Amino acid sequence: MTVRFGVLGAGRIGKVHAKAVASNPQAKLVAVADAFEKAANDLAETYGCEVRSIDQIEKASDIDAVVICTPTDTHADLIERFVLAGKAVFCEKPIDLDAARVEKCLAVVEKAGGTLMVGFNRRFDPHFAAVRKAIDDGAIGKVEQVVITSRDPGPPPADYITRSGGIFRDMTIHDFDMARFLLGEEPVAVTATASVLVDKKIGELGDFDSVSVILVTASGRQCVISNSRRATYGYDQRIEVHGSDGMVSAENQRAVSIEVAGALGYTRPPLHDFFMTRYTEAYANEIAAFIASVTRGAKISPDGKDGLMALKLADAALKSAKEGKTVRL
Amino acid sequence: MTVRFGVLGAGRIGKVHAKAVASNPQAKLVAVADAFEKAANDLAETYGCEVRSIDQIEKASDIDAVVICTPTDTHADLIERFVLAGKAVFCEKPIDLDAARVEKCLAVVEKAGGTLMVGFNRRFDPHFAAVRKAIDDGAIGKVEQVVITSRDPGPPPADYITRSGGIFRDMTIHDFDMARFLLGEEPVAVTATASVLVDKKIGELGDFDSVSVILVTASGRQCVISNSRRATYGYDQRIEVHGSDGMVSAENQRAVSIEVAGALGYTRPPLHDFFMTRYTEAYANEIAAFIASVTRGAKISPDGKDGLMALKLADAALKSAKEGKTVRL
Amino acid sequence: MTVRFGVLGAGRIGKVHAKAVASNPQAKLVAVADAFEKAANDLAETYGCEVRSIDQIEKASDIDAVVICTPTDTHADLIERFVLAGKAVFCEKPIDLDAARVEKCLAVVEKAGGTLMVGFNRRFDPHFAAVRKAIDDGAIGKVEQVVITSRDPGPPPADYITRSGGIFRDMTIHDFDMARFLLGEEPVAVTATASVLVDKKIGELGDFDSVSVILVTASGRQCVISNSRRATYGYDQRIEVHGSDGMVSAENQRAVSIEVAGALGYTRPPLHDFFMTRYTEAYANEIAAFIASVTRGAKISPDGKDGLMALKLADAALKSAKEGKTVRL
Amino acid sequence: MTVRFGVLGAGRIGKVHAKAVASNPQAKLVAVADAFEKAANDLAETYGCEVRSIDQIEKASDIDAVVICTPTDTHADLIERFVLAGKAVFCEKPIDLDAARVEKCLAVVEKAGGTLMVGFNRRFDPHFAAVRKAIDDGAIGKVEQVVITSRDPGPPPADYITRSGGIFRDMTIHDFDMARFLLGEEPVAVTATASVLVDKKIGELGDFDSVSVILVTASGRQCVISNSRRATYGYDQRIEVHGSDGMVSAENQRAVSIEVAGALGYTRPPLHDFFMTRYTEAYANEIAAFIASVTRGAKISPDGKDGLMALKLADAALKSAKEGKTVRL
Repeated sequence: MTVRFGVLGAGRIGKVHAKAVASNPQAKLVAVADAFEKAANDLAETYGCEVRSIDQIEKASDIDAVVICTPTDTHADLIERFVLAGKAVFCEKPIDLDAARVEKCLAVVEKAGGTLMVGFNRRFDPHFAAVRKAIDDGAIGKVEQVVITSRDPGPPPADYITRSGGIFRDMTIHDFDMARFLLGEEPVAVTATASVLVDKKIGELGDFDSVSVILVTASGRQCVISNSRRATYGYDQRIEVHGSDGMVSAENQRAVSIEVAGALGYTRPPLHDFFMTRYTEAYANEIAAFIASVTRGAKISPDGKDGLMALKLADAALKSAKEGKTVRL
Repeated sequence: MTVRFGVLGAGRIGKVHAKAVASNPQAKLVAVADAFEKAANDLAETYGCEVRSIDQIEKASDIDAVVICTPTDTHADLIERFVLAGKAVFCEKPIDLDAARVEKCLAVVEKAGGTLMVGFNRRFDPHFAAVRKAIDDGAIGKVEQVVITSRDPGPPPADYITRSGGIFRDMTIHDFDMARFLLGEEPVAVTATASVLVDKKIGELGDFDSVSVILVTASGRQCVISNSRRATYGYDQRIEVHGSDGMVSAENQRAVSIEVAGALGYTRPPLHDFFMTRYTEAYANEIAAFIASVTRGAKISPDGKDGLMALKLADAALKSAKEGKTVRL
Repeated sequence: MTVRFGVLGAGRIGKVHAKAVASNPQAKLVAVADAFEKAANDLAETYGCEVRSIDQIEKASDIDAVVICTPTDTHADLIERFVLAGKAVFCEKPIDLDAARVEKCLAVVEKAGGTLMVGFNRRFDPHFAAVRKAIDDGAIGKVEQVVITSRDPGPPPADYITRSGGIFRDMTIHDFDMARFLLGEEPVAVTATASVLVDKKIGELGDFDSVSVILVTASGRQCVISNSRRATYGYDQRIEVHGSDGMVSAENQRAVSIEVAGALGYTRPPLHDFFMTRYTEAYANEIAAFIASVTRGAKISPDGKDGLMALKLADAALKSAKEGKTVRL
Repeated sequence: MTVRFGVLGAGRIGKVHAKAVASNPQAKLVAVADAFEKAANDLAETYGCEVRSIDQIEKASDIDAVVICTPTDTHADLIERFVLAGKAVFCEKPIDLDAARVEKCLAVVEKAGGTLMVGFNRRFDPHFAAVRKAIDDGAIGKVEQVVITSRDPGPPPADYITRSGGIFRDMTIHDFDMARFLLGEEPVAVTATASVLVDKKIGELGDFDSVSVILVTASGRQCVISNSRRATYGYDQRIEVHGSDGMVSAENQRAVSIEVAGALGYTRPPLHDFFMTRYTEAYANEIAAFIASVTRGAKISPDGKDGLMALKLADAALKSAKEGKTVRL
């Protein structure tokens, strides 16, 4: 069976998902929609699909599934509309920046018996997925501590910061999802500290650029997250998981793995400098997993609840950082 | 401009190149030919192209270029036919197992002013290409010594060995091409030793499975090559180049870069176990380079002469191994 | 000038320091004291020194400096006695488990103008010292975040736990010192979580075995510390420091750096499994630094105040873990 | 039992061995001899031993063993004298640059039933020893190919080259010994190429600075050796051994294992830049092994025959390089 897709939003992340859909032998990219005509046209031309309006896609009988890549504040509405229209929905994270709105949205999805997958792409990175598999295979015994490093090459533009919901809801939220993916238990307490070290303007906008977070589960498992909006050496994305019998870790990735040795030492190139090149395989695997859910009924993961839980952890972290105390969930 | 392709041969390597062509935005896969109808049909279905005979492709006005992936003993004839038919030709290595036949073929290509690229895919591996770029950028000064490790996960089937021309012409030939690619000077002397250590049957077929080769250029630059038909830990493909100012090396590649630590130590997964997964990017880059030559007149590399030179080194190595002395070219 | 030493305490750590003294060309090991006669005799025989009582060493005119390796509850008293006796004092950490007692002791030392160095050996590990040097050399710009991993191969015996002051005062205290050594600013806030994941008996004794700590300085610099009393793969001791221009990290150490590759992957041996083999060079460098202070007036580091500050951080961490809130210093 | 030593020769390598003897708890350094009075006095003062003449040491009843560190052309004579004097003899490599002289010397040793160990220190490097142990433990199955990289940081002074016997007898000889140590079979054929790439003056002195060698055993096992007198990044000493079931390798060593990451990439420091720091542990282990042979009758390894065989391989390599053909032993 081939899943026929509409892609809503032809911006940066829309292009990523359109490519993943177009490259998947079990998918067909039927149409793309975007308020900016040129963006939609360009994408349609690249992949030989149609340009349609969101309304047209909603009513189309030749479209089975949509990928929502529009601005965040439209996500929840679109999820509801398309689930009610009988389409399987893949939505870029987050569902909404407001947890109450997310909960309302998920209630609509549940009532409709709809299919909703949320775009936490890192679960589909081959290296992180292999970490999870090693845990599931018992390679490290019972999980005890998770250490997540996530550092962006550089800060986003100021206007992105103002509508992103802040570092915890925009950046750390990926790590919260990974923590839940790897801890094997739900975090019950969040302790966070947040600083402005990279760029004062970020502070002036009311946000932070450097955060450290500790999560604890009911049985005492711990997760430590380190974030920064700056890493001169590239996109620093590492995970290590410690268990009763050992540790499993995923190293950083670089486009080219050569090493030059000379009088000053041994030098390897910087890491990937962009999330799209770093997570190319993850985006492809993510859409493949969504297709497997749609066609073969594979369990949806991450689903709407995963999106909600990560958001709640982000909200709790922000509260903890501001109040200087542990927040219990 | 889009280059319209015919692929001759729908076997293992034909599939690899068909995929590379089909995925390239500047190429169109028009037709595939294969004596085995099913193989051709399967490939045609996968990429939505036609099945045609070799004759039909030769005469087709909607095909600009062909990729020759048929059995080795047909390569030279097909190159000549298709060059004379005005098609740009990409031919899997080797052009022929007989150097005299290769020379005759190249004369035909030259007289016709034809375009011929030979499939030494490793030049297009991003890591090996980065090694070459580091040399060109002056990162290690003047090249002095090249060390090439190339070990297959396991020996090929017996019938492949009998028609491959032997380990030097089938396997080491890739390393000879890399040596020429990296030494910056033409080898003038070859010294080789060859043993049967992996499988006695290989010896009974008159071939070897473990070889060590030293190449020397006119100015005394050296290249050492280590080959084996067996590597339990995967497809071992490493290069290091030493120069007057330092060294540049390319490490092995694995599909997943995790590490599990426990009481017995730190363990990383084995390497890629197959040349197709190891060199996925190389095959795509190779076709892209061929397209760039066809459309923009970029220099062909590796060309027919490169194919010939590598074969001559293989012949010399075999002679050296059998006679126990250095062979000068 | 040769510094003439007495070593107080011939137990495990006493042996380490006696060896470091005996091997140092600028030191002479004159005498050792221990309540257990056999321990003292053995050590004296090994290094060809005398056995004396603590009183005798206190009054000896042929001893310039002492190394205090007796039980923790005797440290403060002995420091006071030997400083007043005019000896330079090197004391194993901690000075005392009670911060008030430490402060009183330091007042005595200061009034006497005495020389007191405290045994935080990790500052003298060549790798960690090189991390600090890289920071001082400006290799990473302004320090922003420090990540310290410190995991013991296995938990100490129960009776040690009861007199150690708990994991924060016994184990994390080393990391607190490293944090201060590397942050370049004094921590002003401590947030800690602590769990019992390794061994329930540790919990029954009122202690923890797995802790995560965040330190923050006045300007917002952060340090994250991960500790566990268990690491099946050896003594896990890593540091990474992130700055405005880059990162510097120190990797783990193993006695033998070979790698075995086979069908199951690439395996390196476990790490050092004991702090004495892991920190052999650190102990030698530490005594050398002490000698340099005594003979050439080099700045004492770490000094009594360093010992006090690390203890205060440990106390704050324990309070934070118990009360679930950030503790400000 | 304590072995009482005399050290003959107080030059660079004499100091290394004197230190190893002085630091060994089962050894006592009794006396040192050197034609240069100052060198002998300095060494004697450092370790608190006597200065004696070679004659005095030969006749001394308080000396059990000697370490011969005098110029190469005195080795064979001194071995004979001291073996006949009943001393156990450790002699720096080589015994002599002339194989016939070595054979005569070994005949004297054998007739006298003397104890002779030759200083191929690399067998005692913990990493290389662990490679051998992994082979002996069956970790890689049956040995098939050995790859040895040995590159000096820089060329020795011209006058050393003239008396060293050339690169094969001075530098590659260590690799020949390692090859024999690891191959598990005696090499029967040597093929070598040699160039002058580093410094023309070396060529003017009749020597080479860059060599590549292939050794083959009777059953076809192969060893490839790469040597250069130049490595800007430090003392490059690597070994990998391939067997029927896998590979074992020993990596390079550096004094400090930190890594600095920045916009230009990830940089680790250069390697050790001197054989003495690189092989510190090897020299200590070597003397310990000699002592074990003297006191507990442990098998001498490497012995005089090992010294002879390595020299014969060096002679064969030189002949091969000059004549351009494989030399059979």
